[in-house]
Order: sequence, then structure tokens, then C-alpha cells
Amino acid sequence: MKTAADGDLIRRINRHRVLTEIRRRGTVARVDIAAATALSPATVTTVTGELLDAGLIEIAEDGEAARRGSATLSARGRPRVLLRLNPAACHVAGVKIAMHQVSVWISDFAGNLVRSIMVPVRANRQPPEVVADLVEDALRQACVGAGLKLAEIAGIGLGVPGFIDFSAGICHWSPVFGEGPVALRSLMTERLGRPVFVDNDANLATYAELWRGAGRGHDNFLVVTVEHGVGMGAVVGGQLYRGSKGFGSEFGHTKVARGGALCRCGQRGCLEAYVADFAILREAGDLLSLGDLDDPFEVQRGLDRLAEMARAGDPEVRRIHERAGEMLGLGIANLINLFDPALVILSGERMQLYEFYEAAMLAAARDNVLSVHRDRTPIQVNRWGDEVWAWGAAALALHELHLPPLEERRAV
Amino acid sequence: MKTAADGDLIRRINRHRVLTEIRRRGTVARVDIAAATALSPATVTTVTGELLDAGLIEIAEDGEAARRGSATLSARGRPRVLLRLNPAACHVAGVKIAMHQVSVWISDFAGNLVRSIMVPVRANRQPPEVVADLVEDALRQACVGAGLKLAEIAGIGLGVPGFIDFSAGICHWSPVFGEGPVALRSLMTERLGRPVFVDNDANLATYAELWRGAGRGHDNFLVVTVEHGVGMGAVVGGQLYRGSKGFGSEFGHTKVARGGALCRCGQRGCLEAYVADFAILREAGDLLSLGDLDDPFEVQRGLDRLAEMARAGDPEVRRIHERAGEMLGLGIANLINLFDPALVILSGERMQLYEFYEAAMLAAARDNVLSVHRDRTPIQVNRWGDEVWAWGAAALALHELHLPPLEERRAV
Repeated sequence: MKTAADGDLIRRINRHRVLTEIRRRGTVARVDIAAATALSPATVTTVTGELLDAGLIEIAEDGEAARRGSATLSARGRPRVLLRLNPAACHVAGVKIAMHQVSVWISDFAGNLVRSIMVPVRANRQPPEVVADLVEDALRQACVGAGLKLAEIAGIGLGVPGFIDFSAGICHWSPVFGEGPVALRSLMTERLGRPVFVDNDANLATYAELWRGAGRGHDNFLVVTVEHGVGMGAVVGGQLYRGSKGFGSEFGHTKVARGGALCRCGQRGCLEAYVADFAILREAGDLLSLGDLDDPFEVQRGLDRLAEMARAGDPEVRRIHERAGEMLGLGIANLINLFDPALVILSGERMQLYEFYEAAMLAAARDNVLSVHRDRTPIQVNRWGDEVWAWGAAALALHELHLPPLEERRAV
Repeated sequence: MKTAADGDLIRRINRHRVLTEIRRRGTVARVDIAAATALSPATVTTVTGELLDAGLIEIAEDGEAARRGSATLSARGRPRVLLRLNPAACHVAGVKIAMHQVSVWISDFAGNLVRSIMVPVRANRQPPEVVADLVEDALRQACVGAGLKLAEIAGIGLGVPGFIDFSAGICHWSPVFGEGPVALRSLMTERLGRPVFVDNDANLATYAELWRGAGRGHDNFLVVTVEHGVGMGAVVGGQLYRGSKGFGSEFGHTKVARGGALCRCGQRGCLEAYVADFAILREAGDLLSLGDLDDPFEVQRGLDRLAEMARAGDPEVRRIHERAGEMLGLGIANLINLFDPALVILSGERMQLYEFYEAAMLAAARDNVLSVHRDRTPIQVNRWGDEVWAWGAAALALHELHLPPLEERRAV
């Protein structure tokens, strides 16, 4: 029978804490690790020694230490040894399947991008098996480009919009696959023979923020993604919140108007029905004379045209964005009232249009939060592009490969 | 410097796990504790021995063991020793300050009610100091009745509706105090000299469900309380969720209708503005010819009258309740979409009128959740009366007095 509390467990817990601290900080001295983890300096020295021997961390180069100047000197004036993740410890891959393209990135252990490939494909025109084939081909070619064998990829994080059962690796519904569940993890592991982790794309963006973005160092924050749909990831107690059935937080289909606009899901008044691509284009339909909006390329064209008109100051287009901003602000106010987060981060491709709805969104959020939250919960926009998905998918894979011991994760 | 991972920490972690398991189960055999906690049988024997010596647990009486019959026999046919909390280990007090009364309960370590006192008082007519005096007097008298000295009360859990900063023990706003923050914990510790824990009353109801109610054994569930206002408590990862600034989840002021009904908070479209007492009475104003609705006794009279009319089948009153139910269902659907809880528990005094809005509420919840949640997230009503507050306040005090070691609680 397993004994949870023995010396081995303690070593694993300490190892995970130290590694997490180094990852969060980027470059850090042992004394700061001790202060942040409440471990003794002796324990930190032992654990970092083990991690150095295992090749998971390395001593930061002299150049970097020199660049940081006096910050690298200890109280006694001796130069401090700075530690960081060893980029060469392993490689992971990130994959995002979007409406109009499949993207593959290879990253090192420190999250640096090594190689990427984008394949334009309307995924919803193809059966899932063909999409899986394309992902495999792109990944194999990216490996060749990176000078790696597929067997050297430690794990693959795969992001898809829609309802994903993370633990089973099944996509229950996604606009990129149409009807019916797709056993995405088994489809991919069959082809690749490597560990694959499948997640909602909003969760990937959340991992990116947690590991490398504005969420680093916060225990409770929310990420809202606006693009084809409106997604969300919640970090609670420093961990991605997955909910009781693994569906996590679905922000896009919370209702902001009883009996309101018709949503793609068939219900009325969903936030998505006011804010997502299809909603904006539906409102602007008469102005744009668009073709088939089930065609992702046509959607892309429509959005580009809309951005152009907004920039030219078209008052109708401006009003459309303002209303979307107002609804988004109302929804975000609800989130702030419910989660009391330290920070709300907006992300996703539609942030390129942010300037046109920012003012309306912030005003609506401010007007609709409890007075105790007013001006105390920053709403921050992340304009990083595809990088966010690369980072998120890599972070998902790294996270799953370096999970804390079970005993650290279970609820008490 | 503190070392987080040493033998003493392990002992404390194990002790807390075993005690939590016994508390959750009520009566349990060592072998089942081992299975549930993943601790070895030897460790469980050591830890339960220490807890028995400390008087925190006891061996269940023969009568109870006999009543459980064959379930108490081990695989080898020997009777199993069943353990449970020792009620006499300590006593705690629970206090609830409501609009129309102050209630005080004394409970033993197992949560059994020992003595209670209710003082009818319109708290909002009195300055906070007078309310604190009344709480003190009621508690002192309850102690006399229970044959205890005040010094024997290990801790006091105090619940108030409104915005509470739990860690500071400050009530920022409450309908029972009117304007301005009230330093409730210091007001009470001055008078009582015992540890006092101040919390939102919805959080108390949540503790009651977590410790003794339908939430026992669930890691993620929500409690929604409907009475003077609409409150909420969220359990995430087995712990009450407090948010980043300590305000936790404020469900009552999430918006369900953009630009909708005016709420007491001054904003429009809040769920409370459709569901709380004041909203129901406002709608029914013409039917009831009520007096001053700032008077909690008048509110009580109005609600009783409304219940009577609903029972008599008055169609207008029925419609008022149905609309409230519909809005509540919409709000609960939003919660299910956002939190993916294992269970939603409805609680609070207004559950006495539940029969009049149940159908509308359940239909609206069902119509507005994502299809993946439909019929998979039970909504359960808790009709226990004031007992819920007694239990919640006692559970809060017991929880705070027997917190897990810090290292078990911190985020990784």
C-alpha cells in the first residue's frame, strides 16, 4: 500500500516547488528560492544540486549575470549564482487547430520557439482523420527542420476551440470538427506514439499567461479569449480550474440578456451572440455584402474589411464594436463579481480590434461591478499574436510532464 | 528559517488528513481512513492513536457499532473499531446577525447543538456597538445555560450578510449595519476575549454543507442562498473560495438583464433585483398594501402574506414567483456554465416559498446551460431552517481552529 508521507514524497514535493519557482522567475538566486518557497537554504542547495545533475536547470551564463550587475551580488559582496531552466533538457511540441489553419510549434524546455509551421486548411471541410494526418505531417516536418527526431519530443500539447474533456482527451464539440465527439488524443497518439494532451484553446492561452505572461505570480486570475467564440480560463489557487466534469469555465454562453440575440448554440442572450466574430459580422452584414460565413476565409475577409472601415471612422461600424464592447464589459463585470480575481487578461485574435471597443467595454465593466471591486481589478489586454498559442501548448505539455506529486494537488 | 518539509510537518499533515476524513464520514474504521487518504495502515494506526490520546476522537459506542451490524465486521470476521470525533473535545459558538434577530448557538466538537438563544432586534436601528453588546449578552447567557464558562468556548464563528473582509474581520457593508465599515472582529474580541471569525452568511451556509450537508465529499460545488439578498459560496478543490481580495463570489449582483430592474445597490439588472425579498415585495406592492419596507418586521409580514396568497392560488402572486424563479434559473445556468460544479445547493429562508418557483427555476436553468451540462448537474434544495446557520457558524469556528498546516493549503 502506498504511503503518502515519506522521505521520497518530500523530495518530490521540494523538487517540484523549486523547479516551479525557477520557471516562474526566469533567472533566480538560491537565496530567493528559499525565501519564496519557505524551504531552508540547505534544502534548496540539495534540491538545486539534484536538478543541476539531472540537467533540468543550469547556471546562467556570465554574460547575463554581468548584465544584471549589482543585483547579482549577495549582501557579502560575493557574486550570486543565478539559476534558470536548461533549455536543452527536453523539447515539446504545441499544436493549435483553428478554423482556417493548423499550427505546429516546437519549443525547448525553457519555452523558446525552435521551429514552427502553419498549414492553411479549412479544418471543418475535412474528416478528423485527415486533420490528424495533417498535424502529423506538419509536426514531422517541423522536427526535421529543428534537427530532432519525433522520439525526442517529450510531449505534445494540442489546443482546439470547443468543449474538451481534458482527462479523456476527447473533443465533445468543436467548430473545427462539426458534429459528434472526436477522440483526438487517441487519434494523435496512434500516429505519433508520444504523450499527447488535448485542451480547450482558451486553457492554452491561460497556461501561457500563467507560465510566461501577466498571470505569473498571481494565484487567482482569469483569461478571456475573443475570436471565433468567446472562451475563458480560470486560475484558482495557482492552478487551472477544470470544474467537476472537466468542462471548466464556459464564459461565452453565459447569458447577458434574457431572451436576447440568437446564438450559434441555439440559445438566446449568450455573450457570444453579441461579441464573437459571427455576431459582429451578422450585425455588419448589410454593410459588407459578405459571402458564406461558414467559410473561415470569408470570415477573415469580413473582419479585415470591418477593421478597415472602423479605422476610417465609419460610424455604423464603430457602433457595432461599441455594443460588442458594452456586452463584453457587462460579462466581465459578472466574472469579477463571481471570481474576485486579481487580474482579468483579454487575449485572442480579435484583440487587434480592441481599440474600437475598449472604451465601451471598460465603462460597462466599471459600471457593473460591485463598488468594492471598482478600479481595484485591472483588465489587461494581451496583444501577443500566435505566440500565445505556441507558448500555451508548450506550457501545457511541460506542465503535464512535470506535474507536482499527487499529494500536492489533491484537495484536503 | 522555517523548513517546510520535515518530520513534524508530515505528522501535522497526516493528522489533519485523518481528522478531516473522520469528520467527513461521521463514523469510520481505520482501514477505510487508510483507503481514503492513501496513508499506510501503520501510519493511520499511529495518527489515530495520537488523536485518541489528545481526546479529539473517540471509539464509537458499542450500541452504534451493533446497530451498523455486519458493516462493522472486517474481512476476517473480527469486529472493526469505529472512530468518530469526540464531542467533548471542545465547544464553539456560532452567531448570526440578521435583519430581524441575533441568534447564538453553542455546539460541541462534533457539531451537536448544546444551547441556542434568539434575540428579536432590528439590528439596523442600533449602532454596531449595541449589536455587539447584545451578541455578548446572548452568548454569555447561552454559556450559563450550557453549564460552560465563556473561557471554555474555543472559538466563535460570526455570520453577517454583506461584503465581509474575512481576513481582516471587517464588515465593509451590510444591510444590518447601514453605511460604513464595521470592525466586527475587534468589536467582539474586545468583549469576549475569545478567537472570533467573521464571515459572509452565505459562506456560513457553505461551510454547513461542506461539513455536514449535501456538499460533504464533493470537491467542487456551489451554495446559493436566497433571502434578504441573494448570496453564494463556492467550494473549489474542497476549500471555500475566497477570491483574491477576500470578497469571494457575489452572485446577487451579477447582471441577468442589461438595463433591467433597479437594484438596491443602484445598478440595474442585478439578479437580486428580481429574486430577493425586496424585489418580490416591490412587485407585489399593490396587492399587499405594505408599510415601510425598511422595517424587517414589515418585510416578514409581507412575505408571510404573500406565501398565504400563493398557497391560496392567487394567479398574480404565482406569476411574481414564477418570474423570480425564471431569473434565478437563468443566473444558476450562468453559474453552472462558469463553474462546472458537481452540485448546486439552494439554501436560505426563502426556500419556504420554493414550491412556487421551483418549476420555473428548473426550466430556465435547464434551457440556459450548455448541452454538455444538461441533466448532469443536480440542483438540490436544502430546507433546513436556522440549523444551517448554527452548523455553518460552528463549522467556520472549527475549521479555523483546526486548519490544515499552511503547506497543505498553499498553491503550487
